[in-house]
Amino acid sequence: MSEKRLKVCTIGGGTGNFVVLRGLKQFPIDISAIVSMADDGGSTGILRDELGVLPAGDVRQCMVALSDSSFLMRNLMNYRFENGGLSGHSFGNLFLSALEKVTGSFERAVEEVGRILNIQGKVIPVTTQQVRLRMVLKNRKLLEGEKQIYLSKEIDKGYQSIYLEPYPKANPHAISEIMEADAVVIGPGGLHTSLIANLLVDGVADALLETRAKKIFVVNLMNRKGQTTGYQVSDYVAEMSKYLGRDAFDHIIVNRQLPPKELIEVYREEGELVCNDMEDPRVELADLLGAPEVTCPSDLLRRNLIRHDSNALAEKLMEILEVKKGEKDSLCYASST
Amino acid sequence: MSEKRLKVCTIGGGTGNFVVLRGLKQFPIDISAIVSMADDGGSTGILRDELGVLPAGDVRQCMVALSDSSFLMRNLMNYRFENGGLSGHSFGNLFLSALEKVTGSFERAVEEVGRILNIQGKVIPVTTQQVRLRMVLKNRKLLEGEKQIYLSKEIDKGYQSIYLEPYPKANPHAISEIMEADAVVIGPGGLHTSLIANLLVDGVADALLETRAKKIFVVNLMNRKGQTTGYQVSDYVAEMSKYLGRDAFDHIIVNRQLPPKELIEVYREEGELVCNDMEDPRVELADLLGAPEVTCPSDLLRRNLIRHDSNALAEKLMEILEVKKGEKDSLCYASST
Repeated sequence: MSEKRLKVCTIGGGTGNFVVLRGLKQFPIDISAIVSMADDGGSTGILRDELGVLPAGDVRQCMVALSDSSFLMRNLMNYRFENGGLSGHSFGNLFLSALEKVTGSFERAVEEVGRILNIQGKVIPVTTQQVRLRMVLKNRKLLEGEKQIYLSKEIDKGYQSIYLEPYPKANPHAISEIMEADAVVIGPGGLHTSLIANLLVDGVADALLETRAKKIFVVNLMNRKGQTTGYQVSDYVAEMSKYLGRDAFDHIIVNRQLPPKELIEVYREEGELVCNDMEDPRVELADLLGAPEVTCPSDLLRRNLIRHDSNALAEKLMEILEVKKGEKDSLCYASST
Repeated sequence: MSEKRLKVCTIGGGTGNFVVLRGLKQFPIDISAIVSMADDGGSTGILRDELGVLPAGDVRQCMVALSDSSFLMRNLMNYRFENGGLSGHSFGNLFLSALEKVTGSFERAVEEVGRILNIQGKVIPVTTQQVRLRMVLKNRKLLEGEKQIYLSKEIDKGYQSIYLEPYPKANPHAISEIMEADAVVIGPGGLHTSLIANLLVDGVADALLETRAKKIFVVNLMNRKGQTTGYQVSDYVAEMSKYLGRDAFDHIIVNRQLPPKELIEVYREEGELVCNDMEDPRVELADLLGAPEVTCPSDLLRRNLIRHDSNALAEKLMEILEVKKGEKDSLCYASST
């Protein structure tokens, strides 16, 4: 009986991926994070438009999550300039974009920043083509770009199609990570904007159906009003399966913990908690809420206050995969090969 | 007889300091670069105005000169954004400024970037106070800021005073480097904007008079029209001595090599070659011109085409200080202590 490290591949976008990775990083596993390239809001959107670079924001968040560098360097990556022409730009985005310009390659830029941040694992753009996410609603209205789709309140009235333009080929490194993984963790994250945005890349869904990796879907905690209003767990699974090709999930992780009433109140405008409606042995219920870090009343106005607890989520994932927490460099995963 | 590494401290501004440091770096000596904080042009000026940070540009150039990191990282530091709101900003300036904001300390930012760039030596701001260089001309006109002074064509008609506002205390690290140095190299660089700008900081001139270090003045190759028109070596020495307190130079390095005629033609508008008028054993004449890197006719329009050859200048300095080129980490300087 030999021992090897488990290979875990995550698929998602920005904040959701960050939460998963920050927890997983503490376990003795090999991590690769596949990141959507649809982001076009804020600093990332401006850099795409002005410099013609690939979207840096989501990649940056994953790198910070996996970084073993100093608190200072992680802070620096997320630092946002506050005044003048630089206002709103995060330093990490500028770092990745400048390196992409100097090297001529976004992947090379990610590698270099990864070295400086001493990241434990790999961060891999799902495609290296410049793409935009588009959605045509039932009423024929076209939503152009990830940001417009994320902000729309009309999606739950139905949409006709969602696609990436131009139709991109997957990054071969992303495909090989999926194929070689022992487990693929999809979610949490914006259902259309972060999760399905990955499945729309040519080659990704096929690889997910082909790989022998366990496919684990982490269902969001909250619905987004006007986007996934009234969605229950089965709706999430059905929507994902549509783009995956079939319901190929081996495990479906669902939160069962209730947040404090005050927070639900605060969130009423944003959306409601996702309820489980599936009686299915694949559904794993767990207490996954992060302790709300409310230190002053204005915190209650912040978005994403109800989010997964990184540690609880990672522990649940590792329980499913039978990995024990241990010395980071020890070999804790026993395989029979 | 014990062996120790020679401590060499350079004093100057941007490009001049860069040229000296790039050459010195190849010798087995301990280098510290004291940098003027008067720069307020271009990207640096915008960052000062918009973010309230200390001037990064000259420090960045010194760090790149001393860097032992990859060609890529050095390129990145000098990369300038070309479009949109970031246009004209060099990445290295943003790096230093963001780190200053995150750490609350410019010196800490310099240290961190130094670590990432793996610099061989130290880069030390001459003061850590926010200052502006000012000059009052004979005609009572006030020139505000280093850039205005650098661009003025009226200085050779005479000026009344030059000063830093507010009158700054020297960075104690700069003072201790001067005091502990075996040699201090001042220049080349803009006479008022890069060299005297350092001497105007409270404590610097006193330290230079007190230190046992050999004081070596590297005289500029060219006069700047309207600034130092008609200056000969003795004029440079006299002007520097005015702010130093007395002529305390132990060596005065002067170029004797003539550039190709075409280049002198091109430079006619900028200024003329500096001639030596001193019969003084301290004057060391040497062939110090860099080979002009003219690869296309438009290169002839670039400024600073006539500049010191880093290697020739460093070799002359090391000859004076009796240091032999050798393995960078070996101990090549014999002292009798």
